[in-house]
Amino acid sequence: MSDKVVLYYFNGRGKMESIRWLLAVAGVQFEEVYLTTNEQFQKLVNDGALMFHQVPLVEMDGMKLVQTKAILNYIAGKYNLYGNGLKERVMIDIYAEGARDIMEMIMVLPFTPPEKKQSQLDKIQLKVKDRSLPTYEKALSNSQFLVGNQLSCADVHLFEATLMLEELFPAILSTFPKIQAFQNRMKAIPAINKFLQPGSQRKPPPDEVYVKTVMDVLSHLFK
Amino acid sequence: MSDKVVLYYFNGRGKMESIRWLLAVAGVQFEEVYLTTNEQFQKLVNDGALMFHQVPLVEMDGMKLVQTKAILNYIAGKYNLYGNGLKERVMIDIYAEGARDIMEMIMVLPFTPPEKKQSQLDKIQLKVKDRSLPTYEKALSNSQFLVGNQLSCADVHLFEATLMLEELFPAILSTFPKIQAFQNRMKAIPAINKFLQPGSQRKPPPDEVYVKTVMDVLSHLFK
Repeated sequence: MSDKVVLYYFNGRGKMESIRWLLAVAGVQFEEVYLTTNEQFQKLVNDGALMFHQVPLVEMDGMKLVQTKAILNYIAGKYNLYGNGLKERVMIDIYAEGARDIMEMIMVLPFTPPEKKQSQLDKIQLKVKDRSLPTYEKALSNSQFLVGNQLSCADVHLFEATLMLEELFPAILSTFPKIQAFQNRMKAIPAINKFLQPGSQRKPPPDEVYVKTVMDVLSHLFK
Repeated sequence: MSDKVVLYYFNGRGKMESIRWLLAVAGVQFEEVYLTTNEQFQKLVNDGALMFHQVPLVEMDGMKLVQTKAILNYIAGKYNLYGNGLKERVMIDIYAEGARDIMEMIMVLPFTPPEKKQSQLDKIQLKVKDRSLPTYEKALSNSQFLVGNQLSCADVHLFEATLMLEELFPAILSTFPKIQAFQNRMKAIPAINKFLQPGSQRKPPPDEVYVKTVMDVLSHLFK
C-alpha cells in the first residue's frame, strides 16, 4: 500500500475538517477523494473499507481508519500533539472533547429544519458563552497553551471551534481577551497560517450544495 | 487530596456505566456519590468541579476529571487496557467507538417519547445486525481479543454493549457465534465475573425512577 494519506469524505467540513486541521498542523500532506453519489459510498462499504458503514475514512500508514475520534487520536499521538504522560493526556482529552462538543453542535445546524434553526443557534450561543468559553478563558489565563508547555490537539480543536463560532456570532469572543490572544498566537504558527490562506485544503462553511450532496450520498439513511 | 476514586453521577447507568466497567475490570475500588437534586448539581458547578457543567465527574489521582471519553482513555491508559503502540491503539479506539455508538443509541431510549420508542428500537436493531455485529464477528473470527493478544478497553466496551443489546433483543446474538464465544470468555474473567454478580456496583437497566431523577437533577436543561 502506498505511503500517501488519502481522505474519503464529502467536499466539505463535517466530521473530516478537524482531521484536515490536525494533518495540516502536523505538516502531513494528504489527498482527498470526494464522495458525490450513493454508489460510491456503497462501493466503499462493499469493499470492506467502512467498518461501521460510516465516513470519515482515512488511508494512512497501511491502514484504513474509521471513527473520527480514533483517527484524531492517532494523528495526535503520532505527531506529538498529545502532551507528555497520562496526566497531560487526560487534560488534553478533556479540553479537546469540550471543543468537539461545540463543533458537533454547529456541524448539525445545516441539517436542522429551517423553523428550528434560530432556537438552535440561540441554544448554542447561550451554552458556549455560559459554559465553554469561560472554561477556556480560565485555562488560558496564565498559559500559552491549554495544557503544559507545548501545542496539543486540544489547542488546534479550540482554535478551529472559535473560528466556527465567530462565523455564526462575530462578536462572541469580545468578552474573552485570553481566547482572542490565543487565536492570534495560533494564527502566527506557520502551518496554521498556511492552512488559513485561500487555496488551502481548508473547507468553507457548509452551503446548500454540501447539504444536498451529503443527503444524496447517504440517501439510504434519509429514506 | 485523598487517593480514593469517587464517581459523581446519577444512581444509574448512563454515561458513567462504562467507566464503572473499566474500573471494575482494572480492579480499582471506587465510591459513588449519587446526585438526586438540582441543588447538588449546581453546587458542583459553583465549586468549579464541572468544567463544562456536565457529569460524569470522577475524582482520581488528585484530579477532577470530566468528559466521559477522556476519563475512559485515562483509565485504559493507566491500567494497561490500551494495547501496545499507536497502531494497536488506533484499532482499539475504532472498535471502542463502534461499541460506544451502540451504547449511546440505547442510553437515550428511556428519554425518547413513548410514541417514538418502537421505531427507535427497530432502527437500533437493524443498524446493529446489519453493520456493527458483523464487524465484531469478523474481528473475533481468529482471535481471542478484538486487538492484539491482550484484553483492551474495546473488549470491555463490546462486552458491555452486547449485554445491553441482549436486554432489548434477547436473540440478537443467535447468528453471531464468535461474539457468543467472546461473551463466554469475558464472563470467565474473575474481575468481570465478580462485577456481574448481584450486589456489585453494576447498575440495572434504567427505570422510571432513574429517568425522573435525571430530569430533576438537570431541570435547568429540561425547562
